[in-house]
Amino acid sequence: MSLIVKKFGGSSVANAERIFNVANIIIEDYKKGNDVVVVVSAQGDTTDDLIAKAKEINPAGASKREMDMLLSAGEQISISLLAMAIEKLGCPVTSLLGWQAGFNTDSHHTIARIKKINTERLKTEISKKNIVIVAGFQGINKYDDITTLGRGGSDTSAVAIAASMKADLCQIYTDVDGVYTADPRKVKNARKLDQISYDEMLELATLGAQVLNNRSVEMAKKYNVELEVLSSLERKPGTIVKETVKMEKTLIRGAAKDNNVASISIVGLQDTPGIAFKIFNKLAQEKVNVDIILQSVGRDGTKDITFTVPQDDAETAVSAIKTLSDSLKFNKVTLDESVCKVSIVGAGMESHPGVASTMFEALYDAGINIHMISTSEIKISVLIDEKYGDAAVAAVHDAFIK
Amino acid sequence: MSLIVKKFGGSSVANAERIFNVANIIIEDYKKGNDVVVVVSAQGDTTDDLIAKAKEINPAGASKREMDMLLSAGEQISISLLAMAIEKLGCPVTSLLGWQAGFNTDSHHTIARIKKINTERLKTEISKKNIVIVAGFQGINKYDDITTLGRGGSDTSAVAIAASMKADLCQIYTDVDGVYTADPRKVKNARKLDQISYDEMLELATLGAQVLNNRSVEMAKKYNVELEVLSSLERKPGTIVKETVKMEKTLIRGAAKDNNVASISIVGLQDTPGIAFKIFNKLAQEKVNVDIILQSVGRDGTKDITFTVPQDDAETAVSAIKTLSDSLKFNKVTLDESVCKVSIVGAGMESHPGVASTMFEALYDAGINIHMISTSEIKISVLIDEKYGDAAVAAVHDAFIK
Repeated sequence: MSLIVKKFGGSSVANAERIFNVANIIIEDYKKGNDVVVVVSAQGDTTDDLIAKAKEINPAGASKREMDMLLSAGEQISISLLAMAIEKLGCPVTSLLGWQAGFNTDSHHTIARIKKINTERLKTEISKKNIVIVAGFQGINKYDDITTLGRGGSDTSAVAIAASMKADLCQIYTDVDGVYTADPRKVKNARKLDQISYDEMLELATLGAQVLNNRSVEMAKKYNVELEVLSSLERKPGTIVKETVKMEKTLIRGAAKDNNVASISIVGLQDTPGIAFKIFNKLAQEKVNVDIILQSVGRDGTKDITFTVPQDDAETAVSAIKTLSDSLKFNKVTLDESVCKVSIVGAGMESHPGVASTMFEALYDAGINIHMISTSEIKISVLIDEKYGDAAVAAVHDAFIK
Repeated sequence: MSLIVKKFGGSSVANAERIFNVANIIIEDYKKGNDVVVVVSAQGDTTDDLIAKAKEINPAGASKREMDMLLSAGEQISISLLAMAIEKLGCPVTSLLGWQAGFNTDSHHTIARIKKINTERLKTEISKKNIVIVAGFQGINKYDDITTLGRGGSDTSAVAIAASMKADLCQIYTDVDGVYTADPRKVKNARKLDQISYDEMLELATLGAQVLNNRSVEMAKKYNVELEVLSSLERKPGTIVKETVKMEKTLIRGAAKDNNVASISIVGLQDTPGIAFKIFNKLAQEKVNVDIILQSVGRDGTKDITFTVPQDDAETAVSAIKTLSDSLKFNKVTLDESVCKVSIVGAGMESHPGVASTMFEALYDAGINIHMISTSEIKISVLIDEKYGDAAVAAVHDAFIK
């Protein structure tokens, strides 16, 4: 007998038919003798509908406290409907809101962090052999005000419960049946992974293969919660995410593309001490996330510094650099949004020096030019023209995974 | 400076335009220096939409606990939207759910009773000069489960806050501008009352002039909370409901009709001791509310007993009587739903013996036959054919109120 935490997203509970599908998945595991805690997001379009109502009242944006009050009604609806379906199918069940399930968070409305889960109520319900349905995405702060956890918050809610309750497994149900070596809609030879490590999952998630929310994977890693990514539509094993995974025949775990990248160049910088510090300190102050950085020697002893940022941050970054023109001498700042980042991820590459050259060779053979390169212990990323993104992923993927 | 509690129903906050109308009413009183606590129901059709979702999952009816979880999301949406509108108009505001506002109830889901309001949070928000928007209709029981108060619960929420906070006035906003001497859509000469006593209001409410929920009037009477019934669409004084009201020139406060009445006759009862006890004890066990009772002598020394019940209870009542056929001897049970009850209400009638005869004369002049009569200290009711209901109300009303 195990304790299993299951998380279902909004599309899995979008209508009565899907709610019963989810109810049946839950009951199947419950009837095997397991304790089951389920985390649910708001139904399909509920959140968008509620945001539209708020925008109608205040197009400039309501206070974050009231947005949290409004949006958290969404999960309240989905948990009660799912509980009703489980009741209808004859199993004992209780739905709990974030605060009832003991989710204590900080006070950063709309992007709150979980501080602690008071598991007393959860344990009581489980001891009564109730299936427990918990509202994801929400909690309360120390003033008893409702908070929400931000994008992907329900994944985090599920992992947090699994960690606090020392669950045996935390299953994240999605509309794909696991983690693939590349996007299967784009790469014909992509194949599903049986297992992947937390670090590899984090790198892949960051790279745009958005299967799991990053915060939830970080939390799973921190508390050693075994995750499974699987489909709510097909009954078959998904991909297990855990600390140490068995080596596969292939060196890499996956290839992915990220289009949300802009490349910014500061051209003709006069080389004085501290220029890199001044630039990246300023960007940090403006909360711009800098990814790859390349420094090169330009004409006449000047330097060029090129770096990438998420496209949302690009305007902010360019403006910030321009305000430095008093203390820094440079010719111009250029912005290029027609780039993308293609990466391969795999814990195996650390001990195999040939990985990078295999990747570069595959790109060369495909006639794709590399603008920038960045490497970590388990990842190699290249910046290329956006238009070659899909071709690059396929070429690189097939060079490693046959 | 006063503390004013205001309550707005679902139609008053049905869309953005109406929400801003309500926000402006609130701000007007706040800017005069008053402390304002506002109780709101769920928006227009929200409750019906949520009930439809539940019915789709379980047509036979979900558990009451989960219905409360589901339905209480409705006020969560309306309070946050109203708070956003007040923010937009530049005033400080906080929305509070039932549990946040301290509503502790018993555990009778869907028909819970308020046990206590812990006013700490309300007082804190008021001391910060915040307008406070409270979700009506909802609270929590001792297990921290969400409960709802049943039909008209938001009126009760408002009066309960006014009572616990010792508010100076509790204003119930509706789509009519006060309490009338008769239904103004039916009776041309109907006029608005400036004042009415709690007892008169209770009698009128019971009689089908459903302006205020009865429980809320009972609570207002118990805690001596001054109520005002007024329109959210027009800015003019409504009707004040309080303990002692000034006498008006007219003897009666109003005339009203109740169509939800059925008349049941047990014909040819053999007169043995305890027959009335056996009949009405059985009906009480079946939770049938009996209103008017008439006992008359029939043929051959037998008796007839006729009584009225709400139409919803009629089938139950007839079945219950039939189960008594072993211990009671009678010829038959008849049911007549084509009747209605017309009543006049007024504290003044107690000291004016001519009131009943004026009423009966008015009905006689209108050619309307009276089947049954029932009187209390401040009310006279007659049972007549349903088809004469409106004519009877008009005739009786105009006999007293010129």
